[in-house]
Amino acid sequence: MTDLRGKTLAGTFFHAPVLGGIEVLDDALVEIDEAGRITTVTRSSDPHHEGARIAASRAGALVTLPAGSYVIPGFVDLHIHAPQYPQLGKALHVPLEIWLRHTFPLEARYADVAFAQKVYKTLVADLLASGTTTALYFATIHQEATRLLVDTCLEQGQRALVGKVAMDNPQECPDFYRDASTEAGLEGTRALLDYVRAHPANEGGLVHPVVTPRFLPSCTDAMLEGLGAIVKEHGCHVQTHCSESDWEHGYVLARHGVTDAECLDRFGLLTRRSILAHANLITASDMARIAARGSGVAHCPLSNAYFSNAVFPLRAALAKGVRVGLGTDISGGPSASMLDACRLAVAASRMLESGVDPALPPETRGRPSSRIDIRDAFHLATAGGADALDLPVGRFEPGCHFDAVRVDTTAPNGTIRLFDELDAPEDVLAKIVYTASRANLAEVWVAGRRVGGAG
Amino acid sequence: MTDLRGKTLAGTFFHAPVLGGIEVLDDALVEIDEAGRITTVTRSSDPHHEGARIAASRAGALVTLPAGSYVIPGFVDLHIHAPQYPQLGKALHVPLEIWLRHTFPLEARYADVAFAQKVYKTLVADLLASGTTTALYFATIHQEATRLLVDTCLEQGQRALVGKVAMDNPQECPDFYRDASTEAGLEGTRALLDYVRAHPANEGGLVHPVVTPRFLPSCTDAMLEGLGAIVKEHGCHVQTHCSESDWEHGYVLARHGVTDAECLDRFGLLTRRSILAHANLITASDMARIAARGSGVAHCPLSNAYFSNAVFPLRAALAKGVRVGLGTDISGGPSASMLDACRLAVAASRMLESGVDPALPPETRGRPSSRIDIRDAFHLATAGGADALDLPVGRFEPGCHFDAVRVDTTAPNGTIRLFDELDAPEDVLAKIVYTASRANLAEVWVAGRRVGGAG
Ligand SMILES: [Zn+2]
Ligand SMILES: [Zn+2]
Repeated sequence: MTDLRGKTLAGTFFHAPVLGGIEVLDDALVEIDEAGRITTVTRSSDPHHEGARIAASRAGALVTLPAGSYVIPGFVDLHIHAPQYPQLGKALHVPLEIWLRHTFPLEARYADVAFAQKVYKTLVADLLASGTTTALYFATIHQEATRLLVDTCLEQGQRALVGKVAMDNPQECPDFYRDASTEAGLEGTRALLDYVRAHPANEGGLVHPVVTPRFLPSCTDAMLEGLGAIVKEHGCHVQTHCSESDWEHGYVLARHGVTDAECLDRFGLLTRRSILAHANLITASDMARIAARGSGVAHCPLSNAYFSNAVFPLRAALAKGVRVGLGTDISGGPSASMLDACRLAVAASRMLESGVDPALPPETRGRPSSRIDIRDAFHLATAGGADALDLPVGRFEPGCHFDAVRVDTTAPNGTIRLFDELDAPEDVLAKIVYTASRANLAEVWVAGRRVGGAG
Repeated sequence: MTDLRGKTLAGTFFHAPVLGGIEVLDDALVEIDEAGRITTVTRSSDPHHEGARIAASRAGALVTLPAGSYVIPGFVDLHIHAPQYPQLGKALHVPLEIWLRHTFPLEARYADVAFAQKVYKTLVADLLASGTTTALYFATIHQEATRLLVDTCLEQGQRALVGKVAMDNPQECPDFYRDASTEAGLEGTRALLDYVRAHPANEGGLVHPVVTPRFLPSCTDAMLEGLGAIVKEHGCHVQTHCSESDWEHGYVLARHGVTDAECLDRFGLLTRRSILAHANLITASDMARIAARGSGVAHCPLSNAYFSNAVFPLRAALAKGVRVGLGTDISGGPSASMLDACRLAVAASRMLESGVDPALPPETRGRPSSRIDIRDAFHLATAGGADALDLPVGRFEPGCHFDAVRVDTTAPNGTIRLFDELDAPEDVLAKIVYTASRANLAEVWVAGRRVGGAG
C-alpha cells in the first residue's frame, strides 16, 4: 500500500469528529480523489456499500486493509519548537530561567544553515514516523533557516504551519539571539509570508506561514503592533505562548496591566486562526474572550509538568467554548509523540481532578469534574487540533484531506496486544492510543500520499 | 553479541547505585563469570585496564560494544499483575469499583490453563523486550496457572518473583473468584513455595516464591495470620497493596482500627523482603515503621493517576529511609514499560511539588521539595528496586548478576537522537531514559544470558 490518491480504501476506521465519543467506521469505504481529498465515506450499513466496493474494484482502485490494521486520522501537533529538537529529553531538571540559558544558544546556532538542515530533516521525518501529519512550528529568528524548514516540510510532504520567531525586546532577549531591530523582525515575518505563498512546491497549500511573537515578554509594543497589522492585512495564522507560568503571567500583568489574552487581543493577535500555547493560568474572562474570538489553545501536558506550575483547566475551558488541541511542545516536553501527549493529557486531568497532596483531605484535595478520558484526548489530538487551526483534516468526512495513519496492531516489534475474544472496537482504539509505539504506525499519509511509516 | 557468560564486555556503562546521581563507566571492562555474575569492573583510568583488555582478547573472551551502544542495568519492575495483561490500556475511564468488575472476571479466566499459557508467554516476552529483567508478579488464585507463570519465566530466562494471590474474604471477593477457603488459600501458597524451590530448572535461583495477600480488605484475619506464619517459617518475600486510595485506606482503618502498614506489621507481613504497592496515603509514622522493618514501596505513578487519589510522597518517604522502587502496575497502569514508569514518576513528582490547580495561589498550590529528576527515576527503576527486593542486581559491581540492556542509540526505527557535539554523557543517559523506545533496546541479558532485544 502506498499512494492512495485516486483510490478507495476499504477497512475499519476510527475517528472522533466531536468531543465526547469516538466513531467506529467498521468495514467502510473511503474514497479519495487525485488531490488527496476524501470524496465519499460509505458505511457497511449503507445500501450503496456493496455497489461502491464492486465499482472501485473493477476500476482497479480498491485498496483493502490487511487484517489487524486500522486507520486513524493523523495527529495535529499544535506546538513544536523545531530548533529545540536536539535538546529533547535534556535539561528538564533545571528551572525555566536556566533552561532558557540552554535553549537560546541552541536556537542561535540556526544561523548555521547546514546545522539547521540536518536537524530539520531528522525532525520532520521523525514526526511523520510518529503519525504527526500536521505540525505547527516555531522556527527561529533566522530567515534562511526558517525557509529551510518550509522546504523540508514540502519535500517530505508534511502539512505544516511555520513561523519565524519575532523577539526584539532587549530587556528579555539576549544580545546573541534577538531580532536586529523591530523593523528587521517585522520584515522577516513579511518575507516568510511571501516565501511560503510564492513557493513553487506549495501550490496545494500544504504549508502555511504563521505570525509568531515568541511571547509577550520577548516583544516590544512596537513589534506587537506591527505583527497585529500584518495579521489584519493577510488573515494568516498566529501563534504565541499565553499565561504559561506564574512568572510569565505576572510579568505581563506588571508590564501591560492586563492578562496575556487581553493584551494579545488589544494588539489584534487573538483571531480565529490564533493558537495560544499552554494557557494554564488564564482566567474565566480570558476563556470567554478566547472563545469569542474563536482562538485555540495548544494544551501541552508533557511540558506543563516541568514549566507551568499548574495543570491547564481543560474541562473548564472546553465548557466555555474554547477550542483546544494538543501539543508536544518539543523540547519543553520530552517526547515527539502525540500519543505521549494524549496519555499525559488524560493522566494530568485525573491528577487535577483528584488532587495530588495526600496530606490534604480528599474533599479539598482536587478540582472536581476535571477529568478527560483517552477518547477525549484522541479527539483533541486529531479533530480538535484541526478545528483550532481551521483546517479540514483530523476526521474522515467528505471534503477533508486524507491525512491518516495505518495502525498495524500485529506489528512484531510493536506494543499493542489485542485479544480477539475480549476486545470490543472501542477497546481496540483505547489500546491503540494507550499502547501503540512507532513500530505499530505502519503507514502515514498526508493528502493521500504516503509520507512515512514503519511497515 | 549474544551470551556473555564467561566473557568480558568492553564499552560504556551507565548505572545509578546510589540515589542522587549517575555513574558513567566510560570505556570500562566488565568481566562476567560462567554463572553470569560480574567478577570485576575495570575503569579506563585503572592501571590494569589495558592489561585486562589484552588478556581477555587473547583468551577470546573480549566482546566490544559497537559505536552508539551503551549498557544500562535491566529494569526491576516491583508491581505487575500478570493476568491483567490482556486489559492493558482498557477501562481506565471507569472508577475502581467498576474497574474491578472487569478485572475479577478476567483473573477468574486463568482457571483455563491454555488461556494462561498464551497470555503469560506473551507477557514475559514483552517485558523482556522492554528491558525488564526482574519482575515481581501477582498471579491469580489458581495453583496451576501460577505454576505456569513460574515455568514461563524459567523458560524465557526472566528473573522473577511470583505469588499465588490469597483472597478469601467473602465480604470483599466475589463468589466466582475467591480462595475456596482460608486453608485452601494457605495450602496453595505453601504448594507454590515447594514448587518453586524444587523446580529442576530453578537451580540457579532465578525465580522466587512470594507470599501474596491481595490487599487487606480481601483477606480474613485467619488468612493474614496464616500467611504471617508461612513468612516466619520460610523467610520468603511478601507483596501486597498498601494504603492505595482513600476508600481502601479508610476500609482498613474502620475494620482494623489502624493503618495498613501497622496492620500488616501486626500480622508479621512487614519484613526486609516485603514490597508494598502504592502506599500513597501512608502517614509519617507508617514511613518510620516501614523503614524500621526494611520493607520497600513499589511506587506506581502510571496507575496512581487513575486509582490512588493522590501522588505518592516519594521524597518524604526517601527522607525517612524507606526503600523505594518503581512498578508499572499492569494493568492499573497502561504501559508495560519501566521507561514510562520513570517518565511519569518524574512528571508526577513535579506536579506534586508545584501543585495542579491554577485557581490556587502559587504559595499554597503544591508541596515544596517533592521533585525527583530523571536520574533519580533511573536509580529507582534499577538499583532502588533491586535493593528493595534484597537482590544483587541493578548495578555493575562485582558479585552482582549481569542483568543488563544494550541500548542502541542509532537503531533506525528507534527514537533516540544524539547530537555528538551537544550531548555530554549525562545527556546521553537522560535521552535514553526519556526518549528510548523498544527498537532501541537491542539486547537484553539476565545473568549474562541473552533473553530478548530488538537488535
Ligand atoms: Zn513553547
Ligand atoms: Zn496492584
